[in-house]
Amino acid sequence: MSSADPLWALDPQVVPGPTNSIVDVRGLRVGHHDRRGEGWLTGTTVVLAPPEGAVGGVDVRGGGPGTRETDLLDPVNQVDRVHAVVLSGGSAFGLAAADGVMRHLYAAGCGFPCGTEPSEVVPIVPAAVIFDLGRGGEFTATPDASFGVAACEAASTGAPALGSVGAGAGAECGGLKGGVGSASAVLPDGTTVAALIVVNPAGQVLDLRTGELIGARALLQGDLDVLGERAAYVLGRPDPQELAAARERARTEHGGLVPKVLATTIGVIATDATLTKAQATKVAGIGHDGLARAIDPVHTMHDGDTLFTLATGERPAPDDLAFHGLLTVAARVVTRATVRAVLAAEGCETPTGRRRSYLEAFPSALRPG
Amino acid sequence: MSSADPLWALDPQVVPGPTNSIVDVRGLRVGHHDRRGEGWLTGTTVVLAPPEGAVGGVDVRGGGPGTRETDLLDPVNQVDRVHAVVLSGGSAFGLAAADGVMRHLYAAGCGFPCGTEPSEVVPIVPAAVIFDLGRGGEFTATPDASFGVAACEAASTGAPALGSVGAGAGAECGGLKGGVGSASAVLPDGTTVAALIVVNPAGQVLDLRTGELIGARALLQGDLDVLGERAAYVLGRPDPQELAAARERARTEHGGLVPKVLATTIGVIATDATLTKAQATKVAGIGHDGLARAIDPVHTMHDGDTLFTLATGERPAPDDLAFHGLLTVAARVVTRATVRAVLAAEGCETPTGRRRSYLEAFPSALRPG
Repeated sequence: MSSADPLWALDPQVVPGPTNSIVDVRGLRVGHHDRRGEGWLTGTTVVLAPPEGAVGGVDVRGGGPGTRETDLLDPVNQVDRVHAVVLSGGSAFGLAAADGVMRHLYAAGCGFPCGTEPSEVVPIVPAAVIFDLGRGGEFTATPDASFGVAACEAASTGAPALGSVGAGAGAECGGLKGGVGSASAVLPDGTTVAALIVVNPAGQVLDLRTGELIGARALLQGDLDVLGERAAYVLGRPDPQELAAARERARTEHGGLVPKVLATTIGVIATDATLTKAQATKVAGIGHDGLARAIDPVHTMHDGDTLFTLATGERPAPDDLAFHGLLTVAARVVTRATVRAVLAAEGCETPTGRRRSYLEAFPSALRPG
Repeated sequence: MSSADPLWALDPQVVPGPTNSIVDVRGLRVGHHDRRGEGWLTGTTVVLAPPEGAVGGVDVRGGGPGTRETDLLDPVNQVDRVHAVVLSGGSAFGLAAADGVMRHLYAAGCGFPCGTEPSEVVPIVPAAVIFDLGRGGEFTATPDASFGVAACEAASTGAPALGSVGAGAGAECGGLKGGVGSASAVLPDGTTVAALIVVNPAGQVLDLRTGELIGARALLQGDLDVLGERAAYVLGRPDPQELAAARERARTEHGGLVPKVLATTIGVIATDATLTKAQATKVAGIGHDGLARAIDPVHTMHDGDTLFTLATGERPAPDDLAFHGLLTVAARVVTRATVRAVLAAEGCETPTGRRRSYLEAFPSALRPG
């Protein structure tokens, strides 16, 4: 690795893209579909690649994954372009959402050509799920193919809704409300790297000793835009009384019992750079470092943590130094997207009690700047 | 996962063990051997298992690894006990140090039995190396088998020396001096989890915006004992002038060029719990989250980051909840050992200029408590 820049410049200076979300990688579209009430609290999120597909990669680091179409992403295997990634609630049942996404893409003529007619395509749709079973009251209220279709129909190139929507509708994190977060970064050379993460870990997103969000220090200027009119506030350490109150609630509201914790954080990292399938795999791998900087513990036996990469190839292939910067930033957008998910999450009533958002439990963590 | 503890108790309350090092896992011994001057600045560290071996695991996450005997650690393969782990400088040349460790163990009758006589054993000695070539002046001054033998002969059950010794003699981190760190944790049930890490990353151990050590918040009371009489000091954010000075040095001392950065952080996580080979692999995997919380970026294409696990089995096998705690703490001891390596490192003169330690570059980060 060698260049005419000073050593410090190995730390890439980046700014968020126009929407600070994964659709800043041009050509990608995001759609959510979820259902709440009458036993339901779950949903599906789809990230649609451009029609020709994007080079894909995946890394599964959790001990309890629920996935499909991940083996084909091994760089030694044939297919290198994927047409969509499905993120869904519903545990392994929710993998059915990908059936609907495949139907939608097939109808649009989008897929891997493997017949004699142009219409004879197989859409390549990797998927991963989070555990949210029973959070709306009914264990069997899980996304099916119709959720995948509806998410595709809702997909757009606009900034996706963040918080407790889509695959994040039923998400929780350490007793608080989880959800969907996204963030983007534009490198000095113009390359965009972005992530969309569904945050639902068994571990904590806050330091239990201080109440501070673990990943907060990775935030860039502008990342608090998820807070609307409070975007200019400063995020810090909450008052000790709020920490004591949260601790007391944890003791009493769960009846002194540790609930059965099954969890999982999943997501997609995207870039407009041209990457090989092996490089896309490496990007997904280093993305997990970004989760580790926002969630503790992560990748446990109770998490099925899985990250995908989509590389659209609109920009050139990075050289050695540029790929180093891309990897560095890939991890950081994952951390930022994770924190933004937690900040965008909204508390809600469930059949087993209220799930508070982080800012509902720790309002003093956010102070006028 | 379910127990009679409140939710908060999923966060394991731990204290460092008696030596706050990997030898708190009873039966393990650590030995260093290094050579400095006349072109040399490198060395070897060996972690010796008890004579019967320990259940081993490994996870390689860096993009440029240098390893041996890692394939046998795949849980599908036969051998499940390893007799030593070798950590060495010298890049792939340094793998030769393991030859000496094998000879030493063979002479002691320690190894996998595979002949008709008790003496006919093959010692199982996985190894990983860091890139430190040429840091003492001579590219070819690398550890050989004699370093492995000398490290074995120096091994003891006492607290190992930390800092720029053994495999960490030539270690650097982001332009500062790296080295060897170790830390241990005793869980409430009495299980010990510990780590020994050779810190030599391409990435930074400090937040370049503030100068603060990234992993500092993971430190436990007592972890500053590596500082001797300053053990009661408090580690925090250094003065901005020191940050500006470091930035200026980076600009001028390297002549405006990014040096060719090849690096690698390696280490061993150990526990006295009884683990399967698959569980030991998982422990090594989650240990990399601990590196991510102390080093940014980590696991790059210029790092061969590799972590091993040794489980001595002196204590019972953990149940589901206990294993969750063990994994959580495994990541945290890796972070603590990494920070302790940086704090124990000592600046030194090299043929290409002085390598400052973190505390030499940022003395104000440490203040009387």
